[in-house]
Amino acid sequence: MAEMNTRVLLKRRPVGAPVPEDFEIATAPLPVPEDGQVLVRHRFVSLDPYMRGRMSDAKSYSAPVAIGGVMEAAAVGEVVESRDPRFQPGDSVMNSMGWQQWAAVPAGKLIKVDPTEAPLSANLGVLGMPGLTAWVGLEDIGQPKAGETVVISAASGAVGQVAGQIAKLRGARVVGIAGGVQKCAFIMEALGFDAAVDHRADLNAQLDAACPDGIDVYWENVGGAVQEAVFPRFRDFGRMVMCGMISQYNIAPGADAAGAPAGPNLGPVVRKRLRIQGFIVFDSGWQRYGQFRAEMLGWMNAGKLHWREDVVDGIEKMPQAFIGLLKGENFGKLVVKVG
Amino acid sequence: MAEMNTRVLLKRRPVGAPVPEDFEIATAPLPVPEDGQVLVRHRFVSLDPYMRGRMSDAKSYSAPVAIGGVMEAAAVGEVVESRDPRFQPGDSVMNSMGWQQWAAVPAGKLIKVDPTEAPLSANLGVLGMPGLTAWVGLEDIGQPKAGETVVISAASGAVGQVAGQIAKLRGARVVGIAGGVQKCAFIMEALGFDAAVDHRADLNAQLDAACPDGIDVYWENVGGAVQEAVFPRFRDFGRMVMCGMISQYNIAPGADAAGAPAGPNLGPVVRKRLRIQGFIVFDSGWQRYGQFRAEMLGWMNAGKLHWREDVVDGIEKMPQAFIGLLKGENFGKLVVKVG
Repeated sequence: MAEMNTRVLLKRRPVGAPVPEDFEIATAPLPVPEDGQVLVRHRFVSLDPYMRGRMSDAKSYSAPVAIGGVMEAAAVGEVVESRDPRFQPGDSVMNSMGWQQWAAVPAGKLIKVDPTEAPLSANLGVLGMPGLTAWVGLEDIGQPKAGETVVISAASGAVGQVAGQIAKLRGARVVGIAGGVQKCAFIMEALGFDAAVDHRADLNAQLDAACPDGIDVYWENVGGAVQEAVFPRFRDFGRMVMCGMISQYNIAPGADAAGAPAGPNLGPVVRKRLRIQGFIVFDSGWQRYGQFRAEMLGWMNAGKLHWREDVVDGIEKMPQAFIGLLKGENFGKLVVKVG
Repeated sequence: MAEMNTRVLLKRRPVGAPVPEDFEIATAPLPVPEDGQVLVRHRFVSLDPYMRGRMSDAKSYSAPVAIGGVMEAAAVGEVVESRDPRFQPGDSVMNSMGWQQWAAVPAGKLIKVDPTEAPLSANLGVLGMPGLTAWVGLEDIGQPKAGETVVISAASGAVGQVAGQIAKLRGARVVGIAGGVQKCAFIMEALGFDAAVDHRADLNAQLDAACPDGIDVYWENVGGAVQEAVFPRFRDFGRMVMCGMISQYNIAPGADAAGAPAGPNLGPVVRKRLRIQGFIVFDSGWQRYGQFRAEMLGWMNAGKLHWREDVVDGIEKMPQAFIGLLKGENFGKLVVKVG
């Protein structure tokens, strides 16, 4: 029997937290590349919180996945057949063709990656969109200075682990917030953060101890109770890097935040001259990918940058792994081995 | 009988809205300048919302006025006696020596102003701290571009009237929010704004009509219900210039916003890539005063910049005028003629 392409489709739009029944696992014949396209066999597919937004048709910065369509995701793999002169069979490539084992991709939408520089899956994390997100958000908004206190939420996650390490490398004192003893130990021991705060315990007492002089930069990945505890602790001229608020993705996936809980009173923004700024890496981040990758590889080769992946094996496990990601069940960058 | 110096002192810290009993009107002998000081007879004293913060001992960006101390304010007047070679009797000067008719001021704290360039009182408004605030906030944060929609709250006030006109001069479409028919007519007819919204009527319906494509820049002077109506209307990459939130100065004067109502959910900050940034003109604004004044005088001399003052006559009326300012009872920049 011919090899088939197993894919994960969006069956219906979730109401609240996604459930397995919102997805459909289906097989199809291998796609056939047209002129200018390249056939790619995926090895690893990325799972990231932003995908919850793509499942909703509420107004957002990007169009939703269609019902019956393949879920979007970054994926890395190898070229099997090329109908474009820029790619050869065996080339390692990255694309955004998602939750499936095979894809026929327009050559212009492929990025070639060098598999000798780093493990293939690293291109989905520390060297991929999450790493670039961390780098761009600190370059453009956080701008940590030597000696400043930088607080990172979801600190053991795909973006947080990189953001915290870059802030350390820029000379800041870094405090990570993570869920549970194991994740807190990891950011201290493996990543070298200066302090760890377990958001399952008393946030305020731990933040008092970890940030006695207040907070200069807060990297926001989560929202909710963590944001509430952090916000009053900003020092003058503090910056809040608004990367995401995963705690409310299931209740308010749209741009209007309908149904979401209230936020902080903004009086301190004036008195402390705070800057609260959101960004999406897709806007201008990839234009600086070369600069980012060069700096990151330099740190990696010098042993100054570490990363942890949470690898799930098997494309059929993707829905459950994604549902767990939204609950913080992963430990490190979540990737799925699909081939 | 010798001429006396009538002064307004802070008698006690207000709880909630200030009342006349929080102030004390007292007379003292004229101050005698020491070496390096200059004796100034005040003509006009400025009243501005930030002074509510100075009456409180809650943590803020500036030290509070001491109990029994003279209330702080910008004032303009003439030099009567100088013990510093940089000033001569008759010079027009600006200082921050406050709610009194006379002051002996260290020469280094005086700014000489040219009374032929503009009426003396204009140095407290359109050419003073409020005008500079408008100019700096738009330069550093608002950055209105031609064709963008800029919404100004407290649009007929000291800062709002200037901010709106500068945004117009930079090519933006300007919508002002003000309280009542008269103020709305003023910003349309005298200032040339493109639309006016009366916050005493249905805010949402009027904003729907005035900003059909959303808002690029919002100048925040007020907070509360106006902020709530404006916030969901930001377009992608919108900027919120956090100048003040007068609606809560009486309930939460401190930097921690204790007692203040909740603010907007910040999810849209990510999805729309918003920038919410506060500033205080005293930080770096005065370093650009020359550049600001030159541009403003150019517009004024070309008939392109208008301003309205609300002049109260008599220093003994200052407490009541300030109490009214916090309720929006003034119409235009509030100044007090004291000599």
